[in-house]
Amino acid sequence: MSRWKPDAQGRLVKAAITLFDEQGYDATTVAGIAEAAGLTKRTFFRYFSDKREVLFGGSAELQAQWVTAIGAAPAGASPMAAIDAALDAVAELFTDRHAFARTRSRIVAANPELQERELIKLQALAGAVEEALVARGVAPNAAGLAAHAGVVVFQVAFARWVQQDDPAALRRLMDESLEELRSVTAA
Amino acid sequence: MSRWKPDAQGRLVKAAITLFDEQGYDATTVAGIAEAAGLTKRTFFRYFSDKREVLFGGSAELQAQWVTAIGAAPAGASPMAAIDAALDAVAELFTDRHAFARTRSRIVAANPELQERELIKLQALAGAVEEALVARGVAPNAAGLAAHAGVVVFQVAFARWVQQDDPAALRRLMDESLEELRSVTAA
Repeated sequence: MSRWKPDAQGRLVKAAITLFDEQGYDATTVAGIAEAAGLTKRTFFRYFSDKREVLFGGSAELQAQWVTAIGAAPAGASPMAAIDAALDAVAELFTDRHAFARTRSRIVAANPELQERELIKLQALAGAVEEALVARGVAPNAAGLAAHAGVVVFQVAFARWVQQDDPAALRRLMDESLEELRSVTAA
Repeated sequence: MSRWKPDAQGRLVKAAITLFDEQGYDATTVAGIAEAAGLTKRTFFRYFSDKREVLFGGSAELQAQWVTAIGAAPAGASPMAAIDAALDAVAELFTDRHAFARTRSRIVAANPELQERELIKLQALAGAVEEALVARGVAPNAAGLAAHAGVVVFQVAFARWVQQDDPAALRRLMDESLEELRSVTAA
C-alpha cells in the first residue's frame, strides 16, 4: 500500500465539516479531523492553520474574485454594472460547492463565534469591494453604498441558495435580491 | 460636603471615553474610570456591567427607537417609508450626542475587538428591523433587504456625521445616503 494519499486537503475538509455538523464545532479537534480523514495532524497543519480555517479559508479567494471582476469590468461600466460582473464570477465560483456551502451554513448558524467571524469577513469584503470601485474612479460615497448594497445582495441570495436544492440557482437568486433592493429603495 | 454625587452615570461615561481616547481602550481599567470620575468601582458597576458597556450600552435604546418607529408608521406605509420614520427618530436621538459619538467612533476605530462588537450590534439591529417589518406584514425577502438597506444608510450617514462639525446634519446625511443607494441600485 502506498502511503501517498490523494486529495488530502479535500478529505480533511470533508472530514472536518462532517464532524462539525454532527458533533458540533467546539467539540471537534484537529486530531479528530485528521483521524477521520485517515491522515496525521501534521498533514492537517500543512493545509490549515487551525480548524476555523477549514470554514473560512475560502474568504480570500471569494474576495479576490470580487476585486478581480470589478477591476476587469469595462471602463464605462457603472458601479452596479461592475458589481453585477462580480456577482457573475462569484455565482460561477460557488456552483459546484453547493453541498459544502449548505453544511457550512448550518455549522456557522449553530455557533455564535463563527457567526461573528462570518460578519467580519463580509465587512472586510465590503471594504475591499469599495476600494476596488474607488480604484475605478467611483466617488468614495457612491463606492461605499454600492459596495454595501452588493454585499447585502450577495449575503441575502447566498442565504436563500443554501436553503433550497438547486446548485445552479445562485445567480438567479442574486438577480431577485438585487431587484428587491431596487424595488424597496425606489419607493 | 455631601457625599451625594449628581449625574454619576454621565460623569462615568465622560471619564471613560476621555481615558479610552487618550490612553487606549485596553489600557483603561474600571478602577481608573471610577477614580477619574471621583467615584468608586462599586458605583461604576451600579450602572455598567463592564467597561465595554460604556460604549455599547446605548445599542438597546437605538434598536428600540428603530423598532418602535417602524411599528408606529401608518398602516399603508411602504417598508422604506417605515424605515424613513425610524431614521427620523434615530436622527433626533443622536442630535445632542454628537460630541460623544465623535469620540466614541475614534475609540472604536482604534480597536479591532470593538469594531467587531460594533458590526455584531449593527447586524442584530438589521435583524430587529427585519422582524419589525415582517410584523407589519412585509414579505420576509423584501423585509430583509429593506432592513439591510436601512441599516447601511444609517451606518454610512453616521460615519459621515462624526467626520463633520454640524450636530444637526445627521438627518440630511441620511437622506443623501438613501438617495445615493437609490441612485446606484437604479442603474
